[in-house]
Amino acid sequence: MELALRRGFIWPAFEIYGGAGGFYDYGPMGTALKNRIIEKWRRLYVLGEGFLEVDSPTITPEEVLKASGHVENFVDVMVECKKCGTAFKAVDLVKETASKDIEGLSKEEMNKFMREQLIKCAECGGELGEVFDFNAMFKTTIGPGSKRVGYLRPETAQGIFINFKRLQRLARGKLPFGVVQIGKGYRNEISPRQGMVRLREFTMAEAEVFLDPENPKHPNFERMAGENLRLWLARDQEKGVEKLTEVTAGEAVKQGLTRNELIAYYLALTNVFLQGLGIPPEAIRFREQTKGQRAHYSHETWDAEIFTKRFGWIEVTGIAYRTDYDLSRHIQHSKEDLTVFVDGRKIVCHVVEPSYGIDRPFYCMLEHSYTSDGKRKYLKLRKDLAPVQAGVFPLMSKDGLPEKAGEVQETLKSCGFAVEYDAAGSIGRRYTRADEIGTPYCVTIDHRTLQDGTVTMRDRDTTAQVRVPIQNLPVFLLSLLCDEISFESAGEPVKA
Amino acid sequence: MELALRRGFIWPAFEIYGGAGGFYDYGPMGTALKNRIIEKWRRLYVLGEGFLEVDSPTITPEEVLKASGHVENFVDVMVECKKCGTAFKAVDLVKETASKDIEGLSKEEMNKFMREQLIKCAECGGELGEVFDFNAMFKTTIGPGSKRVGYLRPETAQGIFINFKRLQRLARGKLPFGVVQIGKGYRNEISPRQGMVRLREFTMAEAEVFLDPENPKHPNFERMAGENLRLWLARDQEKGVEKLTEVTAGEAVKQGLTRNELIAYYLALTNVFLQGLGIPPEAIRFREQTKGQRAHYSHETWDAEIFTKRFGWIEVTGIAYRTDYDLSRHIQHSKEDLTVFVDGRKIVCHVVEPSYGIDRPFYCMLEHSYTSDGKRKYLKLRKDLAPVQAGVFPLMSKDGLPEKAGEVQETLKSCGFAVEYDAAGSIGRRYTRADEIGTPYCVTIDHRTLQDGTVTMRDRDTTAQVRVPIQNLPVFLLSLLCDEISFESAGEPVKA
Repeated sequence: MELALRRGFIWPAFEIYGGAGGFYDYGPMGTALKNRIIEKWRRLYVLGEGFLEVDSPTITPEEVLKASGHVENFVDVMVECKKCGTAFKAVDLVKETASKDIEGLSKEEMNKFMREQLIKCAECGGELGEVFDFNAMFKTTIGPGSKRVGYLRPETAQGIFINFKRLQRLARGKLPFGVVQIGKGYRNEISPRQGMVRLREFTMAEAEVFLDPENPKHPNFERMAGENLRLWLARDQEKGVEKLTEVTAGEAVKQGLTRNELIAYYLALTNVFLQGLGIPPEAIRFREQTKGQRAHYSHETWDAEIFTKRFGWIEVTGIAYRTDYDLSRHIQHSKEDLTVFVDGRKIVCHVVEPSYGIDRPFYCMLEHSYTSDGKRKYLKLRKDLAPVQAGVFPLMSKDGLPEKAGEVQETLKSCGFAVEYDAAGSIGRRYTRADEIGTPYCVTIDHRTLQDGTVTMRDRDTTAQVRVPIQNLPVFLLSLLCDEISFESAGEPVKA
Repeated sequence: MELALRRGFIWPAFEIYGGAGGFYDYGPMGTALKNRIIEKWRRLYVLGEGFLEVDSPTITPEEVLKASGHVENFVDVMVECKKCGTAFKAVDLVKETASKDIEGLSKEEMNKFMREQLIKCAECGGELGEVFDFNAMFKTTIGPGSKRVGYLRPETAQGIFINFKRLQRLARGKLPFGVVQIGKGYRNEISPRQGMVRLREFTMAEAEVFLDPENPKHPNFERMAGENLRLWLARDQEKGVEKLTEVTAGEAVKQGLTRNELIAYYLALTNVFLQGLGIPPEAIRFREQTKGQRAHYSHETWDAEIFTKRFGWIEVTGIAYRTDYDLSRHIQHSKEDLTVFVDGRKIVCHVVEPSYGIDRPFYCMLEHSYTSDGKRKYLKLRKDLAPVQAGVFPLMSKDGLPEKAGEVQETLKSCGFAVEYDAAGSIGRRYTRADEIGTPYCVTIDHRTLQDGTVTMRDRDTTAQVRVPIQNLPVFLLSLLCDEISFESAGEPVKA
């Protein structure tokens, strides 16, 4: 985190005004990295899987969220200290002070548990009141007066459901069809204390797959059938067993571990996505939510979790079987006909929803890529995701080297590479800086460059160097970033 | 607009619940187009100009917006009907009912004007009350209770100013340096009635250029010095003269039409950007705001305006000289030292801010690209910005043509092109669909394809067709999209 702060990845928002819990700023490196995660996701779902992408407002009139059940159900159970008045999310307080998970318990059960375990205020040790519901949506009013209540959306999904008719027409009636939305979501957390893991404002990438419940199949399931999944089944959790079931997506369907093929497909696709961010397979698992843990709209939910040193396993993606809950509720509340005809049957589509947080995987990537080998600290980010793809350094600030380096920088920029020119400090310090932001390749312009038109290129992970002709740089860099050639084959090796 | 709705560019949000003024959904085509506008802007400012990009929260604690002056000054002057209670923005009501512009008048002057001109309620003809201020920020509370007031940000800029210290360090102290932010902004309009031109939630791309007021120069001004600008000077507006002054950016500086070189540089860069969206030069002008029109923080502001058939000239970009207003206010309110040392002087940086709306240029692009030549309707979008870059059509749904077309689609997709496969209806109808979403090229797979491996490629603007070998498709398509080759040179011409 020190490095993330210092190098401009991320920092607490509103610092000069004392900060505000649950809000972070992405600095220049963080914004670039986050944008690359989003682009990778978009390529996977929109270009690759052919999903339609929409972009709807974050402010949402109350009617929509009454229909979706969020006004009633999107609540956190909170408890206040009778003495100092500090508010806590009951689940968090118990987890912090007694290391117990009371998620999914009823309010009565929570009160009983907290009384029996003598849970006290974490701030002052005072006695706690009874637990009560707090709606976790940010509330506002639309227009002058307080005529129309609105909320900041708790998920992007509703912006898709309420446009079902238009979208289904654009998808030309075929089922299943998928729609995505990437954007901000909000949750007015009671007292967020867990850094980037518990945010009040976050970026989500959600996909809604509309399907015929009588035919919950993926037309290209075989593409994912062989993908290995590590599943933590609800039945094992309920027995208190932390045992993972390792199966392929195809086997998961055969054994009935997932309700249908579509769910297994998106578990597998999520696996592909998270590994594509550079998360190792052994740090990814899929936890099936128990009945008490599921959201009000879900009949089956899997949480993709990533292991982190700092927070343990954290949820980064939820794959929920939302059934016809949302569309049926909107039919009922809006009086619009959102049914479709399939093979002569009039149906309300069911929905499988893979919903991705972007901020948590971002954090996980930083943690997993951080490498310290005693001598060096560097971010071993996947090369295609690094915020800066190449550093360009003049060896010295004289003899025309800065000018030549400037030319190299311009050439690479004009080819679309994210390049950083750096002439400050010793070459060693510049390598250190590049390593710490995960720049995979550094190009140094020296006196030999002026004679024979070659430069040195350095590999972040091995610190090996090769000598490359300037005119080959763009093609080599592109091939290296896509893992199409090995670094050693890119040029004449340089002895350290 | 009919086409924009039908083809999935844009539609009013929350339609099935009766809609909500000032909110729009971007459909699949609209989202793709909007994303391309954002990418183009990002390439220009971040890759091209080397600005740092940050991403800060949309919810902003009140302290920040008190310091920035928005709690006090971000107000719309409104007026209510005494009879039916309908609320209006005074300026809009007078513009609509009396075709007069009262922007910039004091509240007393507005009251006087409305009394004298006998302005009545536009809904019921009833008598109006006195005008009064309405703060146009969406208000909410952070955390449980109403302890901490927050607002949805009215601009992204404050998220940059309050991080000045960190950003200046990351820019390593050089001046001028620039920071951008792309994201949502909000304005709780009183009664928005002008479609996409008056939104309550919008996407902005803002750049803040921090400079030494004693040296307001751009190190590469010569790059933009020759750019032609069409200026509508404040002095001419004050005289009631609608005369444009046409000068180069260099001349504008020499003649003192802009306060300094940096402002002229960003006027020119804005010109480049807007023309790069396909807006013709004669539909772009820069209007200098008169004193009464300027925001509370600005000493000089230019609005880039685009001419539209539907709304006349509309503002799409503001280039404001914010002086040291924001940093000084944050120094005062946060007690943080946001000064820097330059040549032994301790200064508070001044700021030039080019602030771009994204939604309005989007609308302007649709309007300007809409072409109807009697026989055909098509969107003449710039080829590099079209949502879909190539349509792929099997001529018939048999003889293996769909399979072959599927292969072509996969090849193009894997090269990163946005491709749409379409097998529905006659080939003529498919061309029509492609034309209406602005797809520049369509590739048709026919029986000859199976024999000699060639396909036809059709040009959106001319409907000319050439025959191209499949293996050359990716390179030809790329070269065509970048305007590197002419369509005719891409293959053997096909007689219509």
